[in-house]
Amino acid sequence: MMRLNEISTRPPGGAGKEEYQAKTEALLEELKELQKKLYAQAEYSVLVVLQGLDASGKDGAINKVFSGLNLLGCQVTAFKAPTEEELKHDFLWRVHQRVPARGMIGIFNRSHYEDVLVPRVEKWVDEKTTKARLRHINHFEQLLADNSTVLVKCYLHVSPEEQQERLIERMTNPEKYWKHSDGDWAVVAKRAAYLEAYEDVFKHCSEASPWHVIPADKNWYKVYRLAEVTVEALRRLPLAFPELKRG
Amino acid sequence: MMRLNEISTRPPGGAGKEEYQAKTEALLEELKELQKKLYAQAEYSVLVVLQGLDASGKDGAINKVFSGLNLLGCQVTAFKAPTEEELKHDFLWRVHQRVPARGMIGIFNRSHYEDVLVPRVEKWVDEKTTKARLRHINHFEQLLADNSTVLVKCYLHVSPEEQQERLIERMTNPEKYWKHSDGDWAVVAKRAAYLEAYEDVFKHCSEASPWHVIPADKNWYKVYRLAEVTVEALRRLPLAFPELKRG
Repeated sequence: MMRLNEISTRPPGGAGKEEYQAKTEALLEELKELQKKLYAQAEYSVLVVLQGLDASGKDGAINKVFSGLNLLGCQVTAFKAPTEEELKHDFLWRVHQRVPARGMIGIFNRSHYEDVLVPRVEKWVDEKTTKARLRHINHFEQLLADNSTVLVKCYLHVSPEEQQERLIERMTNPEKYWKHSDGDWAVVAKRAAYLEAYEDVFKHCSEASPWHVIPADKNWYKVYRLAEVTVEALRRLPLAFPELKRG
Repeated sequence: MMRLNEISTRPPGGAGKEEYQAKTEALLEELKELQKKLYAQAEYSVLVVLQGLDASGKDGAINKVFSGLNLLGCQVTAFKAPTEEELKHDFLWRVHQRVPARGMIGIFNRSHYEDVLVPRVEKWVDEKTTKARLRHINHFEQLLADNSTVLVKCYLHVSPEEQQERLIERMTNPEKYWKHSDGDWAVVAKRAAYLEAYEDVFKHCSEASPWHVIPADKNWYKVYRLAEVTVEALRRLPLAFPELKRG
């Protein structure tokens, strides 16, 4: 079983910031070209699922990797605490509505995985419910895979020190005040329980598609890796511009 | 394995029309009372899935059984041939959006089962796809069941003679012209293939909830049975008006 504490939150040695930034540029160019075909062909779709602790850099990663794409073919959904109406349905109801149509890249900023993390750590649900949800997630992702949707599931892995620094910045930088929530600090205190819940997710929900654990202490490396795994997923698809239809 | 040709499409002997109509009246009264609690409690939901060949009497059954209920707590969805947008998603996408919220009775006039009937008989999809869909349906229905949704799945079983009579009426009674479609006759000719596809559905998709085969040659008996299986499902739920919340 994967242990997150044994996985580095920092970039590997060797290449430095500038080299990775150059690689990222190239990847983003390729992503643009791949998206053109994906959209025109309208046969496959891509669903990027981004998870990570508070301040692991999900918003920034989405902005840097996907903002340059053709917006017509992109759709981001941020899943917050469920609404009253959403709570009247099963946990996948609101998620299923937002999966990408053929030709589209869908990006989930948090996702159905929140439902096997927060309620579990906070003990709002029993273990039986969580186990059933993990199974339902696998079935759901298989349904999407059977429908030509490629999933790219990423966990942004941040160290407690870097996370604390970012959370403090939210309280000291006026441009970041809007991101601050006192509640985040309570979650920080439960880091061990959250990592354990994530480890269980990686163990049980890698059937239809694997999880990528992305070192996220350095934004330039995080962006590079997210661009890389996304491009790799698109490269594996038989993308092509459709033939001319006449008449 | 169940053989539809061995199951009668007519009411059983014994009681006659008037007796069944009286029983139906009593059931519909009980259904009204049960729905009041279901709606007020907002804990459970009921999903009635109605399937059957053309002219098996689905519309009439829904009208007679559910029209008297509190409309606030009822929602009918008729699934037609999928739209262009729906075809861009997996086959359960449009269905999942319409499942009943807690407290509601949802009625599907045709359903996700169409996707393992029409495309299969018409050979638009291969057998592997159909088998995968049958599995996905089981997983989907288990997800709903885990979320306190009770499924009531009914197949309205009509004889070829009665069906033919009704289809002819659609071409001779001006009030029914709107229901006529030339295409229905092509489907009639494929009765054996459709019944076989239904038999396979009953075999593979009875995990989360059983199928009820309802003799549908006589409308009064069909309505009685649909009311009965619906009421029985509601009776099994621990329905109760909530306590007074004060302060």
